[in-house]
Amino acid sequence: MFTFVQILDFIGTLAFAISGIRLASAKQFDLFGAYVVGVTTAIGGGTMRDLLLSQPPFWMTNPFYLICSAIALLWVIVFRRFLVRQNNTWFLFDSIGLALFTVTGIEKTVSAGFPFWTAIIMGTLTGAGGGVFRDVFINEVPLIFRKEIYALACVIGGLVYYTCHRIGLDNVQAGLVCGASVMLTRFLAVKYHLHLPVLKRED
Amino acid sequence: MFTFVQILDFIGTLAFAISGIRLASAKQFDLFGAYVVGVTTAIGGGTMRDLLLSQPPFWMTNPFYLICSAIALLWVIVFRRFLVRQNNTWFLFDSIGLALFTVTGIEKTVSAGFPFWTAIIMGTLTGAGGGVFRDVFINEVPLIFRKEIYALACVIGGLVYYTCHRIGLDNVQAGLVCGASVMLTRFLAVKYHLHLPVLKRED
Amino acid sequence: MFTFVQILDFIGTLAFAISGIRLASAKQFDLFGAYVVGVTTAIGGGTMRDLLLSQPPFWMTNPFYLICSAIALLWVIVFRRFLVRQNNTWFLFDSIGLALFTVTGIEKTVSAGFPFWTAIIMGTLTGAGGGVFRDVFINEVPLIFRKEIYALACVIGGLVYYTCHRIGLDNVQAGLVCGASVMLTRFLAVKYHLHLPVLKRED
Repeated sequence: MFTFVQILDFIGTLAFAISGIRLASAKQFDLFGAYVVGVTTAIGGGTMRDLLLSQPPFWMTNPFYLICSAIALLWVIVFRRFLVRQNNTWFLFDSIGLALFTVTGIEKTVSAGFPFWTAIIMGTLTGAGGGVFRDVFINEVPLIFRKEIYALACVIGGLVYYTCHRIGLDNVQAGLVCGASVMLTRFLAVKYHLHLPVLKRED
Repeated sequence: MFTFVQILDFIGTLAFAISGIRLASAKQFDLFGAYVVGVTTAIGGGTMRDLLLSQPPFWMTNPFYLICSAIALLWVIVFRRFLVRQNNTWFLFDSIGLALFTVTGIEKTVSAGFPFWTAIIMGTLTGAGGGVFRDVFINEVPLIFRKEIYALACVIGGLVYYTCHRIGLDNVQAGLVCGASVMLTRFLAVKYHLHLPVLKRED
Repeated sequence: MFTFVQILDFIGTLAFAISGIRLASAKQFDLFGAYVVGVTTAIGGGTMRDLLLSQPPFWMTNPFYLICSAIALLWVIVFRRFLVRQNNTWFLFDSIGLALFTVTGIEKTVSAGFPFWTAIIMGTLTGAGGGVFRDVFINEVPLIFRKEIYALACVIGGLVYYTCHRIGLDNVQAGLVCGASVMLTRFLAVKYHLHLPVLKRED
């Protein structure tokens, strides 16, 4: 049977891969290219985290993530006409992925003995890094540097995790509250079109 | 004296570096920039593989690859007018490099104790990854995600290697058959303009 | 109290981060995006070096570099109107950073037991690599591959360091002469508009 975390992991990986595959397809990538961009969106952040932590990348011993990405490719091929109508569902799934990957990144970094501020960075990188690789591959300016609050939701989640940890909650509790706060931040950001300010032009 | 593999390695590295230097020159890179792009095309895939395998990058203890890339730069400077006429030769040499680097990537990953599907990915990354770095540096959408079958030749080669391994061939035999199948796939792809399909637009 | 090297490190990190933040702002990145590009410009080269050397990235256990980058962001926000007038100062500070990071990269690589030619590459990567990440993020062709001599100043500094080492100078002396030669090369390159030649077009 699957655990609760494995189900969230499946949902998040699927959503991340689908976001990469859709953007790659819009740029006329072939099936192989779309798959590679999908995989990179799904595993890029965690891979960068593992390299920085000097640990073997998580997907190299577990085919789960590549299979998820293949399912995502199939999904886009089969349900192409309905994807726009599914946008709310994919937004929800993407937020679940963002929340879970942030928590995973934080916990893996703390376990490796790094300070908490490093863990918050690694949580943000795990959650939002894949999208940066995706946008570099499709040759666009990374979306997370410009659009409504996305990576900042991971940072906020990280600060919430740290607070939970300081007031004595255990890992599971802190992870749940952190994940919920990432998702809540995302929902509020999209609902109220919250953007960070852009620096004014130099004169 | 040089071994057979060293000669192939020289040919492949030269061809990869030349492809990077030519594309960089077309974008008005200076000599240093062209050299860096050439080196990155030649060693980028293998470097990424070594980082993922937690091994010291292969070129850091052996100046061979940087010297090859310098020879490639000299070649482009001296034979600039004749490069287009040499296109068939460079296509052949590039295919040799693709084949050899795929085999090297597979064998290094299997030796490191990873499963075979990881090795096939690493073989593909070793063969086709340098071209992705090249295209990111010259600020183009990576060619291998769009043009005729290139990285897929490495995947096919990897599956062939695995089959050879399963039916009892030794490393040298499996490597030769794998390399031959990579080259054959490339030749057929270019001769018959074989492309992977592109995903249709969402409605 | 701060050591001399720490002060140079602060100046260099500030200048690198500011160059990233200014370019990101010109591309309408939001505050978070500008900060990420600033940080990446400041620490990207050294991070790549540490990954290649299989060492934990230097900034993961020392918040100094992220704080410097935050100060850089504040500086750009507060002194936005005066940044152009400060261009000469930032050019000087950027050159100090380039010189220091080159020396650091060389010494760390030699300490790790690699040959000197690898150390020169790592010095160049430490000094000039961050700017490549910056330019990939803002979706421009990396400036160092095209503009007046920049990364080549690091290579020249590396050769000077090696010469000093061979004639018997100690680390501090060799580092000072190397750093001075990096800065001198930069000054001469900018003052006399020294460019490397661009390869002529293929016919």
